[in-house]
Amino acid sequence: MMAREIGHTVWALAEGYIPAWSNGPPPEFESHETACILNAGDEPANVSLTLYFEGKEPVGPYRVTVGARRTVHLRFNDLSDPEPVPKGTGFATVIESDRPIVVQHTRLDSRQAENALMTTMAFPVR
Amino acid sequence: MMAREIGHTVWALAEGYIPAWSNGPPPEFESHETACILNAGDEPANVSLTLYFEGKEPVGPYRVTVGARRTVHLRFNDLSDPEPVPKGTGFATVIESDRPIVVQHTRLDSRQAENALMTTMAFPVR
Amino acid sequence: MMAREIGHTVWALAEGYIPAWSNGPPPEFESHETACILNAGDEPANVSLTLYFEGKEPVGPYRVTVGARRTVHLRFNDLSDPEPVPKGTGFATVIESDRPIVVQHTRLDSRQAENALMTTMAFPVR
Amino acid sequence: MMAREIGHTVWALAEGYIPAWSNGPPPEFESHETACILNAGDEPANVSLTLYFEGKEPVGPYRVTVGARRTVHLRFNDLSDPEPVPKGTGFATVIESDRPIVVQHTRLDSRQAENALMTTMAFPVR
Repeated sequence: MMAREIGHTVWALAEGYIPAWSNGPPPEFESHETACILNAGDEPANVSLTLYFEGKEPVGPYRVTVGARRTVHLRFNDLSDPEPVPKGTGFATVIESDRPIVVQHTRLDSRQAENALMTTMAFPVR
Repeated sequence: MMAREIGHTVWALAEGYIPAWSNGPPPEFESHETACILNAGDEPANVSLTLYFEGKEPVGPYRVTVGARRTVHLRFNDLSDPEPVPKGTGFATVIESDRPIVVQHTRLDSRQAENALMTTMAFPVR
Repeated sequence: MMAREIGHTVWALAEGYIPAWSNGPPPEFESHETACILNAGDEPANVSLTLYFEGKEPVGPYRVTVGARRTVHLRFNDLSDPEPVPKGTGFATVIESDRPIVVQHTRLDSRQAENALMTTMAFPVR
Repeated sequence: MMAREIGHTVWALAEGYIPAWSNGPPPEFESHETACILNAGDEPANVSLTLYFEGKEPVGPYRVTVGARRTVHLRFNDLSDPEPVPKGTGFATVIESDRPIVVQHTRLDSRQAENALMTTMAFPVR
């Protein structure tokens, strides 16, 4: 079994948007914006997210710990501290970690009858 | 709160296409092609976009300023100077900035009853 | 005809999810999560996948051989050794190879009447 | 107007698939797999594509010229020389150019009533 550090400590996403409504039973079909984080190393990763907006100062840090050899599929919908992420508003995100991680971005949009999906690896800053 | 420069100063997108029609109430369900730009630094970023086409010379620069610690979700539909972006035609885009930025590309296609979504980080040139 | 080694030997995906059900005739419309692997070189590539989860230790290695000058579109649904991949659960994947390969991630989600698609290049670790 | 070389000379896509049928009026709603190529430089780019398969030797080169300061949105459906790309079969692609280019991959899948879309930047090999 592989156990080692993989990835970068700072990642960025320029796109972010939580649709204002959904069409389908939650939680599976609730519209969501997800940052999937992989910590393949043997030490827990302390991760901080800072959100950037079009018309106001950044909000954060939102903090999450990703255990050793674990992944977290973090839903922006679930963030509440320091404040919930506003819906129907564009944002961007910088993810920082004290250990190397890998970050991938996925959105499920269920505002209409059928789902739409999109994904991309985040941008590895350093 | 993090405040620093992140990213690159030249980015490229090889895909671009504004569908010629939409199916749903604007602006949320208007078909759109978006360049999401993050400026995490403490100085405004002066950004220029140049559009490349299949059958004619490039058009631009289109100019946009992204404030310090701000993001702009730029819709190609909204560009008008030096000229609107033609619909139903493929194009590519080079994005240049005087400050490091991060660029992500997203399309919402609502030509049919249900939305389709796609996204990718732009290609960091330098 | 080009015949040479292209890519990296370690790749990572932070997102992974096999929907728990489908809507459409298998195998084409069965919901699936795919790791597309290209081996452009002249020697077979011995590939190992390790899967990471939110609440348990990693599982693997899953082994697959990609022949010289071949591609494999590997469905996570089809993995069975050392154990099937659980459905309806988030996971992440590290892909290792003894030869350079290129890895791209695609999901077809057919849980609702219409398909949703997403893709991204995996993250090249080394 | 910017006029210069941007990108890489070898790119790879590990995913490729032309659906075997469509649902909607061609050419706009014909299912298609596209390699979008940007040549931002002042010289034409001579581009060669080699396709890799699961069960047979690679096919190619398919040749296309991308003019100076032009983009080509190349549909794999349209390739015919040395032979058409088989439908309903997975493949991978290596794109080589004598000038720096940028390559992005997009699929429109219209096999069902509503479209699905996906995109990613290709992997820059060198």
